[in-house]
Amino acid sequence: MDRIPILKMGQFLLVTIQIDLYDRIALNLETDLVQMIHKTGARGVLIDISAVSIVDSFMGRILGNIATMSKILDAETVVVGMQPAVAITLVELGLPLNGVFTALNVERGMILLQSRLASDPDEEEDEDDNPE
Amino acid sequence: MDRIPILKMGQFLLVTIQIDLYDRIALNLETDLVQMIHKTGARGVLIDISAVSIVDSFMGRILGNIATMSKILDAETVVVGMQPAVAITLVELGLPLNGVFTALNVERGMILLQSRLASDPDEEEDEDDNPE
Repeated sequence: MDRIPILKMGQFLLVTIQIDLYDRIALNLETDLVQMIHKTGARGVLIDISAVSIVDSFMGRILGNIATMSKILDAETVVVGMQPAVAITLVELGLPLNGVFTALNVERGMILLQSRLASDPDEEEDEDDNPE
Repeated sequence: MDRIPILKMGQFLLVTIQIDLYDRIALNLETDLVQMIHKTGARGVLIDISAVSIVDSFMGRILGNIATMSKILDAETVVVGMQPAVAITLVELGLPLNGVFTALNVERGMILLQSRLASDPDEEEDEDDNPE
């Protein structure tokens, strides 16, 4: 099992990280995710890291990469389920996860993504009262 | 990482199996899942096995156990994302996954759970036209 499954849930993609992200797994995840965004037209990516108890600069960089790649393909990234200790470590390591949104759990992450989509002027179906 | 995270999504719980289920992980998963059903009052459990390429009788038994435990706590279990080769192996092993519903992917699994909830006479809010 050297690939992390990506689940499509409506307009969003969900990835649950349960294993240590070493080089090959991380590269596969990045490739699979951009291909999946391209294929499905997903508007958001939720990355659940509730099973991750230790975070390092590599993991921080991968999350940042994913967020940047997704953004280029017009999808926002939300990291959800971060353990308190991981949040402390990230700040102590000086990795504030720039460009990545965070939410306490998947449900709140979905609400965040939906509210961002709703406030996006390109999203016609959610903006019926758009003045233009 | 010796625990598989359980994600709450509305009325349902979602578990993504990405690692080999050996004894301790499987027991932890069973325990965590029944506690989570009890805590959240979830009505359905989605188990994504899209990352599982090899299935054996132990895995089949664990899935069956989870379905039985969940059913006792009034939650249905749907196994989603099964790879074609896994379906073949299950039948060849003589493990037809009794008591477990299956669906092609998470989205279809959610629709299946929602339709089962809607047809459940106990579920008042979804049965406004109930003759009783």
